[in-house]
Amino acid sequence: MDMKNVELNKQEIQELPQVIKVGLLGFGTIGSGVFTVLNNERELITRRLYKAIGRHVEIQITKVLVLPDEYPPGLPTELRVTDYNEILNDASIDIVVELIGGLNPATNFMIQAMEKGKHVVTANKYAIFTAQGALEAKADETDVHLRYEAAVGGAIPILRSINEGLIGDQIESVVGILNGSTNYILTGVKNGKTLEEALAEAKQNGYLEADPSADLEGYDAMHKLGILGYLITGQYPAASSIEREGIEKITAEDIENAKLNGQAYKLVARATKNADGEFTYSVKPEALNPDHPLYHTEGVLNTILITSKYAKELVFTGYGAGSLETATAVTGDIVSIARDLHIC
Amino acid sequence: MDMKNVELNKQEIQELPQVIKVGLLGFGTIGSGVFTVLNNERELITRRLYKAIGRHVEIQITKVLVLPDEYPPGLPTELRVTDYNEILNDASIDIVVELIGGLNPATNFMIQAMEKGKHVVTANKYAIFTAQGALEAKADETDVHLRYEAAVGGAIPILRSINEGLIGDQIESVVGILNGSTNYILTGVKNGKTLEEALAEAKQNGYLEADPSADLEGYDAMHKLGILGYLITGQYPAASSIEREGIEKITAEDIENAKLNGQAYKLVARATKNADGEFTYSVKPEALNPDHPLYHTEGVLNTILITSKYAKELVFTGYGAGSLETATAVTGDIVSIARDLHIC
Repeated sequence: MDMKNVELNKQEIQELPQVIKVGLLGFGTIGSGVFTVLNNERELITRRLYKAIGRHVEIQITKVLVLPDEYPPGLPTELRVTDYNEILNDASIDIVVELIGGLNPATNFMIQAMEKGKHVVTANKYAIFTAQGALEAKADETDVHLRYEAAVGGAIPILRSINEGLIGDQIESVVGILNGSTNYILTGVKNGKTLEEALAEAKQNGYLEADPSADLEGYDAMHKLGILGYLITGQYPAASSIEREGIEKITAEDIENAKLNGQAYKLVARATKNADGEFTYSVKPEALNPDHPLYHTEGVLNTILITSKYAKELVFTGYGAGSLETATAVTGDIVSIARDLHIC
Repeated sequence: MDMKNVELNKQEIQELPQVIKVGLLGFGTIGSGVFTVLNNERELITRRLYKAIGRHVEIQITKVLVLPDEYPPGLPTELRVTDYNEILNDASIDIVVELIGGLNPATNFMIQAMEKGKHVVTANKYAIFTAQGALEAKADETDVHLRYEAAVGGAIPILRSINEGLIGDQIESVVGILNGSTNYILTGVKNGKTLEEALAEAKQNGYLEADPSADLEGYDAMHKLGILGYLITGQYPAASSIEREGIEKITAEDIENAKLNGQAYKLVARATKNADGEFTYSVKPEALNPDHPLYHTEGVLNTILITSKYAKELVFTGYGAGSLETATAVTGDIVSIARDLHIC
């Protein structure tokens, strides 16, 4: 032991730089956004963390998992790995950030990371919802942090607001536009396009996947609503218990009628407490009046309206998707884990 | 030492109940609301804290400071104290919640509490802004938590969203309706009343103090804007650096002109980054068009629009005042301190 270290006073120990190492899984839309934000804003984040915890902490992405045939231009060669074991078995990596998407290998990768004692951040609503609480249980069991703010509402800090801001409140209902792609299409319809024209435009602008059914048929919104349901009730609703109808069933006649009434269609996700105190869930197109808080949400924006016993009404609007927008929420999760690790 | 304790396993130690004791200063609108929420939702809060930290923690208000001639009907006699020293010198009290309002004794009480190693929660924007960072510095120096989510935007979790959700983002501007009383008056004007009529109605409904100048002349919004400025830049703007104009200067002609243009007046608080990267601040009435995100905010609601480098645009709406509404935010702060104390 270096005698000098022994003689450090409390102030000096706090001044020691500490590096939190991150292994990033995936370098697509969100992954590359997270890489950009964490690198561009390293100084800002370190300064704000210092203000919060009184210690110099730096967050570094040290390895990025991509496919064997994938060479993303923005990714430094020395960070590129193609075998997950290189991240999993790297004891210096504190946080695994899963941004591959899809059920597997994403879910397995997260479980393996937690079993190795690594904290996990993800934006993967599909995997989180489908696991129906198994990922949270694994985090409890392995005593690590699991965060997924970006999984619902993109840049909107909705999970944090429910989990922390409203921790003493009883939420009565959540009503949201949770899927940006379908809202983009329905905004086109509101502005005079037919459903077919708006759909074609959304495809052309890259707002829909090759297989757009997760968006169009309401599955994506259903996964997000299920996560909100878990935060509110402590239990995931089963997929079968969520009434689900996509936007593809809206007819030209429906659209014409809505217009005549001054209404606009939105794909509305609802979690509502019924008379027995149980929550019921639905995702379906609804024609809204102009005075509804969700009526004015256009394009790829998301809006979430919460009604509760004490706060009464809160409305959040922001970008529900996008590279840098979603990266903001992922970054917030990473930094909050870094904060919690140093708060003692 | 009881041998039984020595033999407790990790699980059993975690199951031990732990009480976080709170001393409440003031039992007015917000104080009585916090008392209600913490008592009514004790079980809910304990359950959610257990989920977050894996320990049984209970939050208890054990003493409430009121004036010598004050006997609030909802306050149990055994909790009532009239001398602050009874709270200050009670070593079992972990958190002092200051809801007296005004500069002093509120500011001195907070400083004294921190010097005794007690954590502090407040909703007092006037005291926080006027101290210009001295309260935060005292919290650093004494190594305690200081939280004031309820000071800006009432129930809206705006400070948390900026400090944590957007910790890696660069905020470019904040534009907000931060004062519910003046917004209530201006909503009346929008709906056809004269400024005088709307003002009289607000007074009648108890939305204005006996001396309403803090609201009407924009001081209250200025304090809140200053706090937002501190979160964004790390420095409080001096009061003299904030352009401030109240709603009392709006003329009947202004109102008529706004109506002809389809506009509505709002008391708008702005923090905007200029070309040099410095922030400029203003609080003044502005006639807004119907497509402005703040146009639709009616009555005592507050709305805050944040534009930033990565999240791009976030809009938050909720009750900016009210007993239980504001109590939600105070409760969130108390519970988050309890969480941080037990996270190790």
